[in-house]
Amino acid sequence: MRRDAPLSSDEPAEPLYRQLAQRLSDGIEQAGLGEGSRLPSVRTLAAQYGVSLTTALQALRWLETKGRIEARPRSGYFVAKRARRSKRTSVEGVSGEASDKLAHRWSDPPPELDSQARDHLAMVGEPCAVRFDLASAEPSLYPIDRFSVLLRRLAYQHRDLVGSHVRGAGYPALRREIARQAMQYACELDPDELVITNGCVEALNLALRAVVRPGDVVAIESPAYFVLLQMLRALEVKAWPIPCHPETGMDLHALKEAFAHVPIKAVVTVANGNNPLGSVASNAAKEALVKLLRERDVPLIEDDIFGDVCFGETRPAPVRAFDTHGNVLLCGGFSKSLCPGLRLGWLAAGRFTERVKALKYTTSMATAELQQAAVAEMLASGGYALHLRRLKAALRQQLTVMREAVLRYFPDGTQVTDPAGGFVLWAKLPALGSRAISTRTLFELARAEGIGFAPGHLFGEGGAYDDCLRLNAGNQWTSELEAAVERLGVLARQAVRDDGRSLP
Amino acid sequence: MRRDAPLSSDEPAEPLYRQLAQRLSDGIEQAGLGEGSRLPSVRTLAAQYGVSLTTALQALRWLETKGRIEARPRSGYFVAKRARRSKRTSVEGVSGEASDKLAHRWSDPPPELDSQARDHLAMVGEPCAVRFDLASAEPSLYPIDRFSVLLRRLAYQHRDLVGSHVRGAGYPALRREIARQAMQYACELDPDELVITNGCVEALNLALRAVVRPGDVVAIESPAYFVLLQMLRALEVKAWPIPCHPETGMDLHALKEAFAHVPIKAVVTVANGNNPLGSVASNAAKEALVKLLRERDVPLIEDDIFGDVCFGETRPAPVRAFDTHGNVLLCGGFSKSLCPGLRLGWLAAGRFTERVKALKYTTSMATAELQQAAVAEMLASGGYALHLRRLKAALRQQLTVMREAVLRYFPDGTQVTDPAGGFVLWAKLPALGSRAISTRTLFELARAEGIGFAPGHLFGEGGAYDDCLRLNAGNQWTSELEAAVERLGVLARQAVRDDGRSLP
Repeated sequence: MRRDAPLSSDEPAEPLYRQLAQRLSDGIEQAGLGEGSRLPSVRTLAAQYGVSLTTALQALRWLETKGRIEARPRSGYFVAKRARRSKRTSVEGVSGEASDKLAHRWSDPPPELDSQARDHLAMVGEPCAVRFDLASAEPSLYPIDRFSVLLRRLAYQHRDLVGSHVRGAGYPALRREIARQAMQYACELDPDELVITNGCVEALNLALRAVVRPGDVVAIESPAYFVLLQMLRALEVKAWPIPCHPETGMDLHALKEAFAHVPIKAVVTVANGNNPLGSVASNAAKEALVKLLRERDVPLIEDDIFGDVCFGETRPAPVRAFDTHGNVLLCGGFSKSLCPGLRLGWLAAGRFTERVKALKYTTSMATAELQQAAVAEMLASGGYALHLRRLKAALRQQLTVMREAVLRYFPDGTQVTDPAGGFVLWAKLPALGSRAISTRTLFELARAEGIGFAPGHLFGEGGAYDDCLRLNAGNQWTSELEAAVERLGVLARQAVRDDGRSLP
Repeated sequence: MRRDAPLSSDEPAEPLYRQLAQRLSDGIEQAGLGEGSRLPSVRTLAAQYGVSLTTALQALRWLETKGRIEARPRSGYFVAKRARRSKRTSVEGVSGEASDKLAHRWSDPPPELDSQARDHLAMVGEPCAVRFDLASAEPSLYPIDRFSVLLRRLAYQHRDLVGSHVRGAGYPALRREIARQAMQYACELDPDELVITNGCVEALNLALRAVVRPGDVVAIESPAYFVLLQMLRALEVKAWPIPCHPETGMDLHALKEAFAHVPIKAVVTVANGNNPLGSVASNAAKEALVKLLRERDVPLIEDDIFGDVCFGETRPAPVRAFDTHGNVLLCGGFSKSLCPGLRLGWLAAGRFTERVKALKYTTSMATAELQQAAVAEMLASGGYALHLRRLKAALRQQLTVMREAVLRYFPDGTQVTDPAGGFVLWAKLPALGSRAISTRTLFELARAEGIGFAPGHLFGEGGAYDDCLRLNAGNQWTSELEAAVERLGVLARQAVRDDGRSLP
């Protein structure tokens, strides 16, 4: 690859990274680099072309989206295989017919993955040594041995759980147990309105599809759980961000404002153990939210997956507990609180139950019953409260230690949440001098060293939260984790942006 | 309830059933019938008002959709609870604001369930004594004992299958086994393009969402698997029916015709063991279909769930086997062929793989791995072929006997398929004199007696196939089943339509 000719800086319209990308692409061609040839590292490129790490990375990503090169985890970038390149090109050829595209708003092909989706898949799709990325606790914090016993007994005694055609809303005993649990925090659920889902993500998906249509606008908290943002985009539903405060939750004043100007069709909230903020809204705020939406006849979708792992004296009530009109679609699940591997969630859909049942049938038909029966027995047998106490104590302690480490090792001025529940910390990094830190760049740098975390841009739109990141505290604290936080602090100082800077 | 005043027949604009519905509703009010009061049976109403069973049923269904009355399985119709009635009314009030509705095409609330969806849910949601409705075989035809052993061993030895956070495309060993199986019928699948799904229904759903958007048109076979029709409606995708022949499959001439006039964005086919027709398309037809779609750059979604239970000497190749451009999204699963209760399907998405993986993540995130590991071991251990031989022999024999019974007991002139694969028979009933038989009416009559089947209108749109029905032959033949077929034959003779007839 030729690196001798200097990059030109007299074309301000072309972003820096695109200039560099073009140069690299030409270089690959001219040097006749074959598929699989390794490209120089991000650092090397940045130094050679006198650009920041961010710009070098953007150039590589651009070539990656073009199918010209490919990233390999922890190895770097390589010239892509020819097959992959031509496939991509043909896909682009189809979507590139702009005239046709504009003429038929609803007949474009589904959009290509955006950079959020790609980072997202990169994050979850590969092994990494330090998992600060996903909101997951380590298996030792879950009653796995008991599940092992339960599953074995059920697989032996109730072969119909395996052999029979499965239908409908889910295993009746599990639906009853979920309703019984909810009574403990004054939330009345009818087993007949409950639909068991493949994880809480499916519950959210069904809830959304039950109340909004493509093109509609949904108000969400900002920052927001990144899967929700991707889900809305996949459903062609527009997200309307409402600021969310780390201590008090969704800003109801801003929501009211939005109602005055935007045709909002539904609202999504994570009131208990907000992801990523860790906030728990007050009962007064929950009541006010219910009232506000009831007045406007706008349904609320509540994601309560972290409700059982909030740290207060009593389990906080979901917003749904304050609703008497079937207007709240409450989504829950067991992947965070009881057993990550079983992929069980649920949805209590109030007055939308019939619609949700029909959607479930055409989305995945039914959920396998063996694991439903196991969770039902676990809940019925009464050890759940004890397990939760242990899990919450561990999470709380791990969050505290990790928070201290972040404040110690990250650049001065870093702000970090003090969560009232859940698994994660949310940190906002300061500017270094006049240059903002980009956690997208940090993400790539850390990923190359086997340290995963969730970069802030996943939690917002249009580059929001690029100076933030989410860290998972679900794993037991060790000196390795401490070293990883320290290393992130070092890398953060290198991950500054240089937007708008012209080339040397 | 007053039944003395005669029904008026001087308002031809008002359909007969609506007149009757109004009369019944007034009657409930005037008689002050409280919630839970039982209404006269369909037969009684039909006799009292001098209308056909179909008309009486339509009237009751109309009142049911209005929330005025409710159906209880095998008991009849009852005055609805007040709560239910007021809830329904409020929902209607919202969607009834017509001006607002027309102004915002994409901001209407999602449509209420139609009669297809309601019949569908009624069909699957309640127990019935004779299950001719679902395409399911009885548990004794599946290797349940072996799964019991496998699951117990896995739950003991591999607790990580239960305790670990689950991600991505699915259990690697299962993806490899699926690719290995496919090689046996000359279909090359790459484990890296495979995504494990919650049943084949989720695979279909993801495949559709990967290639079409709301408002697009998809060509489907007609008659079509009813879940597909409901799925398309839920996704706001238009179905374009292409005739499908009981022996040769999808009519490619008609498909070509459609391409000339309709902006078809994708095609869905069930080429092997078509549901409901039981047809298997020839290899020549499969090649021609691939070629046709390749020329037009239109993706094909292939539902091959019944591919492994086709009766020929060799397992028929899926259409995908003839494709070399990644243009076929092949959907499969194990609920029909190996183990109904595990809810496992898969999707090989070709050039749409990246998109499907992103959609999977925001639809259900991942599929539980314990059952994936069990199926992987089952496939690897080699007993699958032997199991399939036994299953197919049983299905074939049961289909033959059931077919004979239908020809014996159903009205003269009934036509019935002779399936080349799968679980089901498709029968077309003759007109009795000048009056067509409505299998919707038959469905209600049979349901009241605990006999379930799938009425023809579920398989088409706009009242198509109302003279057809699908019967499941998955259960071992018994004298009870024979008696049920005989009874269906008797009821069919009563289930005639009297559309357009004026009242006496």
